[in-house]
Amino acid sequence: MTTTESRSISLDTITAPVADDLAAFRKYFRAELRSDNLLLDTALRYVLRRKGKQIRPLLVLLSAAASGGVSHRSYIGAALVELLHTATLLHDDVVDEAEARRGLPSLNAVWNNKTAVLVGDYLLAHGLRISNENGEYRFLAITSLAVQRMSKGELLQTKKTRKLDINEEEYYRIISDKTASLIASCCEIGAVSATEDEAIRRAFGEFGEQLGLAFQIRDDLFDYVGSSNAIGKPIGNDIKERKLTLPLIYALRSAPRSESRQILRMIRKGMRDDSGPVDEVISFVAAHGGIEYASRRAEEHRTKAVEAIATVPPSPARDALHDLASFVISRAT
Amino acid sequence: MTTTESRSISLDTITAPVADDLAAFRKYFRAELRSDNLLLDTALRYVLRRKGKQIRPLLVLLSAAASGGVSHRSYIGAALVELLHTATLLHDDVVDEAEARRGLPSLNAVWNNKTAVLVGDYLLAHGLRISNENGEYRFLAITSLAVQRMSKGELLQTKKTRKLDINEEEYYRIISDKTASLIASCCEIGAVSATEDEAIRRAFGEFGEQLGLAFQIRDDLFDYVGSSNAIGKPIGNDIKERKLTLPLIYALRSAPRSESRQILRMIRKGMRDDSGPVDEVISFVAAHGGIEYASRRAEEHRTKAVEAIATVPPSPARDALHDLASFVISRAT
Repeated sequence: MTTTESRSISLDTITAPVADDLAAFRKYFRAELRSDNLLLDTALRYVLRRKGKQIRPLLVLLSAAASGGVSHRSYIGAALVELLHTATLLHDDVVDEAEARRGLPSLNAVWNNKTAVLVGDYLLAHGLRISNENGEYRFLAITSLAVQRMSKGELLQTKKTRKLDINEEEYYRIISDKTASLIASCCEIGAVSATEDEAIRRAFGEFGEQLGLAFQIRDDLFDYVGSSNAIGKPIGNDIKERKLTLPLIYALRSAPRSESRQILRMIRKGMRDDSGPVDEVISFVAAHGGIEYASRRAEEHRTKAVEAIATVPPSPARDALHDLASFVISRAT
Repeated sequence: MTTTESRSISLDTITAPVADDLAAFRKYFRAELRSDNLLLDTALRYVLRRKGKQIRPLLVLLSAAASGGVSHRSYIGAALVELLHTATLLHDDVVDEAEARRGLPSLNAVWNNKTAVLVGDYLLAHGLRISNENGEYRFLAITSLAVQRMSKGELLQTKKTRKLDINEEEYYRIISDKTASLIASCCEIGAVSATEDEAIRRAFGEFGEQLGLAFQIRDDLFDYVGSSNAIGKPIGNDIKERKLTLPLIYALRSAPRSESRQILRMIRKGMRDDSGPVDEVISFVAAHGGIEYASRRAEEHRTKAVEAIATVPPSPARDALHDLASFVISRAT
């Protein structure tokens, strides 16, 4: 594990400084999501029930607490990012034709693509409306840029997956747009809700960007080092989907050219159902330092994240953000 | 035909008062849609190529011209509604699993659901961003409400289609949310771009709402009176999809109960490929005054639209809006 922390970090200890705020936010969020349209209300309650860890609202609240203090404005920001995130999950369901997400059948499978796309659009618009009605135009500017970057990143990944040709710079562009942009938005929005200081706002945006990169690299590493039990994601899934991520990109660059070519040919041909070829790719990545390299990069981004908010006055919330950065790259699940 | 106009009205004569503005808008719009991402750029150029009549930008510009004058603000508003409309078309492609739209294969069929959803999200976010960067927060408030109404209307229609149970009030709620909301937004945004007078802004919103209702009722009538050659939409399509629209809703209410029940049973069973049952439903609707009733309602909404902007000073643009309302309900295609 790459974490440098020795204390025991859990999501509970990270949440502690804003536990009351998070509870208040959840109440506000549930109330906001009520609808007079029966079908929509059913869909929204379904979405609420399968809610994840709500890391994004947590980031908004911690960033607000660390940069001046949580206020009602922070709740609006947290609702906006959570609505946006949920909308993209619904659209991802369609996009990935995912049959299950978070253990529950996806809305897409339960109802259909139509409902998933429409409820996604509805949630997106709802987030915009809450921000608008409260005059939070800066939130809107931050998130509309993030939505554009997210779709751009996904589109570039689609293209690269098809062509099986990607270098480290392109990989970074994809994960920055696809993943880090929304994480950065959360932190920036939290700071915007709590301080007028533009330097601090930017610092939290940068913290989120680095955290997002660390998170995605760690997530991509799970494909090579995770156990399918721990994370619920089968090993080698990315390889089967021809998605080249950092460990493999590095290994392909480091290995002798003939060996790299053979691995690419194998991936291009498609992985068979038996695990032989997948195992071969995983061994190749490990043998050529891909896992070590990606772990080191994730750790670098964690360090950069911590440095980004080094000038912010110390507080339990800032400590929690540091812990979150460690948690993200050390998590076993 | 229900139109009361005797002059010959065409889309060209309607466009005339803002022809130069429309050309300038198109140039601005094309420039806005350029992207440094190659896949995205290809998708955007594809979207531009299959652009429709751009009725929505036309509505923005005519409303602006009639309420104070077209400005750069009007172009921003026109771009926002056109981006929004294009995004919903792309999402509709997925939603309807449409294989062709406007004669060209849908983006969905050409590429896939993934690209369609993502490019739709990108366009939506792009519209928000343009508005945001130009401080056009009122535009954002108007359109985020419209997006919510559109998805709500579509969802209600989905539900009603499944249950085959809808009354006139519910039909109106669906077409108001699904169709009229965006048309109303166009007209309101045009007025907002040209005048500070809230009464005039509201008047144009109401004009658009009534125009949208007239348009949708007329569109639904085509399923019963259109020819498949003229409109490119096969007669009886709604019936086959179990979509109950105003002509049928009225006929079901007016006809003897036993006869209505039999028609509903027939629709529930599903229309066979031969046209017998469809023809029977169409004859039923005609026999019980459904076509006449819906035509009368469309004409009523045209009148209300014209009345809504009666206090606005006369101008070629206002005349063109009157003509557009007539055109919408008299069009043969």
